[in-house]
Parts: sequence; C-alpha cells; structure tokens
Amino acid sequence: MERLQKQIDFIVEIDKLKNIFRQNVVIEDRRNENDAEHSWHLSMMALLLREHFIDPNVDLLKSVKMTIIHDLVEIYAGDTFCYDQEGNKDKLEREIQSARKLFSILPKDQEKELWDLWQEFEETDTMEAKFAACLDRMQPLLLNSMTEGHTWKKPGVNKNKVIERNKILRDHAPNLWEYVISKIDDAVEKGHLKE
Amino acid sequence: MERLQKQIDFIVEIDKLKNIFRQNVVIEDRRNENDAEHSWHLSMMALLLREHFIDPNVDLLKSVKMTIIHDLVEIYAGDTFCYDQEGNKDKLEREIQSARKLFSILPKDQEKELWDLWQEFEETDTMEAKFAACLDRMQPLLLNSMTEGHTWKKPGVNKNKVIERNKILRDHAPNLWEYVISKIDDAVEKGHLKE
Repeated sequence: MERLQKQIDFIVEIDKLKNIFRQNVVIEDRRNENDAEHSWHLSMMALLLREHFIDPNVDLLKSVKMTIIHDLVEIYAGDTFCYDQEGNKDKLEREIQSARKLFSILPKDQEKELWDLWQEFEETDTMEAKFAACLDRMQPLLLNSMTEGHTWKKPGVNKNKVIERNKILRDHAPNLWEYVISKIDDAVEKGHLKE
Repeated sequence: MERLQKQIDFIVEIDKLKNIFRQNVVIEDRRNENDAEHSWHLSMMALLLREHFIDPNVDLLKSVKMTIIHDLVEIYAGDTFCYDQEGNKDKLEREIQSARKLFSILPKDQEKELWDLWQEFEETDTMEAKFAACLDRMQPLLLNSMTEGHTWKKPGVNKNKVIERNKILRDHAPNLWEYVISKIDDAVEKGHLKE
C-alpha cells in the first residue's frame, strides 16, 4: 500500500498540469490551451499519423508514453514559449530541477522510467522520440493555422523561425512536412505570419 | 494527400473535446474539468497502475488507446453525469449517433479502428476495456476526495451509489478497490458524502 500511495500522490500532483497554460489557443473560444489538453491532443495524433512517419516500425506505445509525459516537467518549470530566446537559455536547467522534484514522488522504478522517457524525448535521438517531436511541432501549427496565426503574430516570430522549428518533419515525415509548408505559405499570404 | 487531409480534419474537429466540461473540478482552482484533461489523466494512470490490475498481461497500448478516445463521442452528445438517471436513459443512443458522425471524418480503416475501440470500451468485456473502465471510475473519485466531495454533494448521490459505480475495481483491481473504499469511508466520516 505504501507503493500505491506514492503512485496516487503523483497522480494527484500532476493534476496541476491542467493549469499550466501555453501560448496557443483552443480553436473554438480562443482561450489559452493547457499542457494536459495539448498532451492529450498529441497522443491522439500519434494514434492516427504513424503511417506518415519515415520508420513504420516505430514503437507506438513508447511514442504515446512520451506524448503523455513530455510536458510534466512544466508543472514546476512553467511553459517556455518556443520563440522566447531569453526564456530558453535556462529552460533545460529549470526543467531538470522540476523533473527531479516531480518524478521523485513515484516509487524508484517508475521514477526511473519517467526520467528515462523524458530524457529520451528531450535528446530526440531515437525514432520514438523523433515521432513524438514531429507531433509536438505539428499540433501548435494546426492550432495556429485555424486561429489566424494566434501565436505567430507575437513579437519575434516569422516564417523562417516557424520553418526552422518544424524542420524535423522534413527529414522524418515528408507528407506531414509538405502539409506544414503549405500551411505556412498560406499563413504568410493571408498576413497571419511575417515573411 | 486526401487521406492525410481527412486525418487532419479529424484532429482539428476533436479540438472541441477541450470544451466539453464534466461535473468534476480540477483540484487547484476548482473549475470544471474538461474531457481532454480527463482523458489525459486516465492515460497517465494507465501507465502507472497496470501492476494493480488482476491481469498483468493486459495489452497496455490498447488500454491507453481506449483512455485517449473513450470520451470523443461526447463532442456532439455532451457529458452525461453518471448519477443523472434521466440523462442516462438516452445516453447510449446519443453517443452512437455522435460516434457515427465524428468517426466518419476519418479514412475508413481508422473510422473502423476507433469505432471498434469505443465499442469494446463501452461493452467492457475484454481485460483491456475493464482496465480502462477501472481508471475511468477511480480518477473522478480521486478528484472528489481532494475537493471535499465536489460532485458527491450533488442531489441524488450517496455512498451506495458511489460504491456501485466503482465496483468493477473490486473484482479486477483489489488494491485499488481497498484504496477507493477507504476514501469513500473517509468522505462519509467528514460529511462530504451522504451515508
């Protein structure tokens, strides 16, 4: 029961992910999306889009695990806007501290499992991490393309930076990359994204 | 590209799950939880609690898929409070209509996959569906136990109904059942749940 109590304590603590808000907005009412919603959306995309990933043998369960856990570290570290140069300088350090604190609530073996999964996602070396990263880039792009470029209009964002941010798709999911580029061009044409 | 466009249309449409609100509230600020957050929380629990399920060989990926997709049908059917007798009379019919409409956005093979997964979850005959159902019962109970029985104080809810709602845990996850019963007794003692 001590082991179960640790697991429950963790499950209760991560309820806080529902109050970590991102820069992106939900399509219908344009309120900020939170990390729990974003993580769910990525996991749903993982179930549907694997066929477009360059390695069809990618371990789907492992990638789904990454989409589910990848933003947990933001519970104490907060969300850092991907185009915020200043905030990104100490992002990794803040997130490592957060991961240590959060995952240590769990029994040792599960602490290690989550730590390893998160590290693998961050390093983006394995196929499973690359697939999860592709989805993590593409989901905000879909929201932006449906909300007249909500976060693309923020200071410091332009076409080149969005392309740079998404370029993992070019090498690992050519169909998705083609789609993404068409949406970026479309947004520039409509004035939702600076050239 | 036509196939990808259908998948994207679906991914965009299900953004609406973020605005389907449940009776339960998020622990920290006591606002209503939405279905996307709830689904994410269940999938996270699936990753951590499988060892407490009676069949340790349950297919984790399949159960996780169910936790991710199980409430999609509420996009058009709305959330029905589990203790609302009137609303539950036509719940299944409303959800079947909703599933038909929503899943048909996808390519045929994926429409079938989601339909089959959802049906399997609803019928709760397989081990994977039973595990997902255990989590779907336990998660609101955890939120209630952390929010002085927020939904347990609503009309028509009492100890017996909560026990009845959770009894799938008794037969399939004895450790979790023991924990759940202790929380129910605790809530009655504190006056957060009627005897």
